Amino acid sequence: MDSQAWASPWAGANWSPMGDYDERKYKWESHTFNKLWDMIPTGLTMELPTRAFFADPSELNDIPWKDLCRDFSIMENEPLPLNMKAGVRFTTVALAPASYLKWLKSELHSRGVKFIQQKLQSLQEAAVIGGPGCIIVNATALGARSLIGVEDTKCYPIRGQTTIVYAPQVKECIEVVSDLDATKGTGHATYIIPRVYPPGTVLLGGTFQPNNWDTSFDIPTAKGIFERCAAVEPALLSSETQILSYGIGLRPAREGGPRVEVEWIDVPGESELIPSRGSLGEKRKVKVVHAYGFGPAGYQSSWGAAEEAVQLLRSSEA
Amino acid sequence: MDSQAWASPWAGANWSPMGDYDERKYKWESHTFNKLWDMIPTGLTMELPTRAFFADPSELNDIPWKDLCRDFSIMENEPLPLNMKAGVRFTTVALAPASYLKWLKSELHSRGVKFIQQKLQSLQEAAVIGGPGCIIVNATALGARSLIGVEDTKCYPIRGQTTIVYAPQVKECIEVVSDLDATKGTGHATYIIPRVYPPGTVLLGGTFQPNNWDTSFDIPTAKGIFERCAAVEPALLSSETQILSYGIGLRPAREGGPRVEVEWIDVPGESELIPSRGSLGEKRKVKVVHAYGFGPAGYQSSWGAAEEAVQLLRSSEA
Repeated sequence: MDSQAWASPWAGANWSPMGDYDERKYKWESHTFNKLWDMIPTGLTMELPTRAFFADPSELNDIPWKDLCRDFSIMENEPLPLNMKAGVRFTTVALAPASYLKWLKSELHSRGVKFIQQKLQSLQEAAVIGGPGCIIVNATALGARSLIGVEDTKCYPIRGQTTIVYAPQVKECIEVVSDLDATKGTGHATYIIPRVYPPGTVLLGGTFQPNNWDTSFDIPTAKGIFERCAAVEPALLSSETQILSYGIGLRPAREGGPRVEVEWIDVPGESELIPSRGSLGEKRKVKVVHAYGFGPAGYQSSWGAAEEAVQLLRSSEA
Repeated sequence: MDSQAWASPWAGANWSPMGDYDERKYKWESHTFNKLWDMIPTGLTMELPTRAFFADPSELNDIPWKDLCRDFSIMENEPLPLNMKAGVRFTTVALAPASYLKWLKSELHSRGVKFIQQKLQSLQEAAVIGGPGCIIVNATALGARSLIGVEDTKCYPIRGQTTIVYAPQVKECIEVVSDLDATKGTGHATYIIPRVYPPGTVLLGGTFQPNNWDTSFDIPTAKGIFERCAAVEPALLSSETQILSYGIGLRPAREGGPRVEVEWIDVPGESELIPSRGSLGEKRKVKVVHAYGFGPAGYQSSWGAAEEAVQLLRSSEA
């Protein structure tokens, strides 16, 4: 296997902020929420009623997205699962990667974007393909670690394993938010996400394992995921539930958070590591927009981060 | 990426025993040596003059393969690289995976073997494809860890990273044997293997990183590999040398060594983890020959282990 492992095709992918508040990141995510919400009539995204549980009630004190998501309320006098001490309800938005990515590609096609699929070892090779005056958008996710000329060793994977079941009786998303805290280090992340497509399918998660590159299917983990999900959603134990498939993906995280930034590079570069593949062309400067390292929040940052990338490009031209 | 990472296409692949002597394993490897040696006239394998270096001179005391390899001699009064304390010369045999695997496939084709490429999650699915009276050969390497019905958690990867260079001036294989000792835990493994094909190409290695599943290209590692190889083979520093490509593979190792064994299994199995994909057929017993877990010694064990698998099958019929 000589391609880089990645996560997008196996993502949940619900809009659901995680981790500490960061103003820039929140701007990306709220922009994206509004965009995805507006797309609901197209059928590419859907409203997703959600219950989220917390082990520490103080986590409820500061939920910046409570006015952005719809129908937000704190659960009162309701039974809570496991060791949970608080819960909230809200309605968010979700997409199904397979159909959504296909749509994205067709939109780009219709705007005249040409797709070239080719394995590159270095930024310089992209500059040769782009030619004089090109702009390179480096959205290589975990690949930024391996791309000669970027070599960003702050990038690291957070392994996720999931199970896709047919369970039409499960209509609501459930998240054990405290499980999604990477600093707690259990490696578990319990979530249940009904999918837009195919109808009746539900994604059960999962794991959150920093620096674990294992893209193989782990059987004990699959057992644990089903057990933890059924504990918070007993409807899964119905005989209607059928296992359809398993997914394993590496979320492309980065120490210090995502990198969205414009940089000028010299090509051809000086690195002696670039494989010989013919001429790298005349010496020149090339503009690169980096946009990678979104970890578990790729889809929900996407439209907002792209907007910022465009602004950075425009101001770099001024 | 939903397939299991593996190593065969990126292997050296020279015949070169490593680790402690084990009678059964040595039987596989010596059988395979003779087979590959006899194939030299076909051009699929080639004679490979080798120098191997040891940090501990006592490692020379017991080299069981010294009468099997050709032209074996202990180096006397020659300068030794780095911190090495002893060295030997011998001639062994090597193959180039791309052309060798293609030939193996064509041989099977010509014997009437049909190839079906399909992703299976369980042994049971293989039994359905094979039908009544079938024999399953489970040669799934690291996949044996993930295959429902096998679930062998003793399997683990040993990550290898290599660089392929064009360096026709390098004619001889060099191995720093002490670097190949997994118990030393440096993660480095220094070796230089001229390849049968394409002409003039040489594989530079490498790494030996147990339990590391990272299949991405690591740039600092690539620099280290070139430096370590050039230190033992200064001819690499010639301006003739060109980097052609990089390889990353996971050697399919197993605690306790390879598993070559016959087992009867019940199908359909009881596991609730098997994805629903139609009927799994009538209840019956199916014979499985396991052959996996060869770690860094897959090619050099192959013919001998296959021979033993056939014997095990024959005696299980008696």
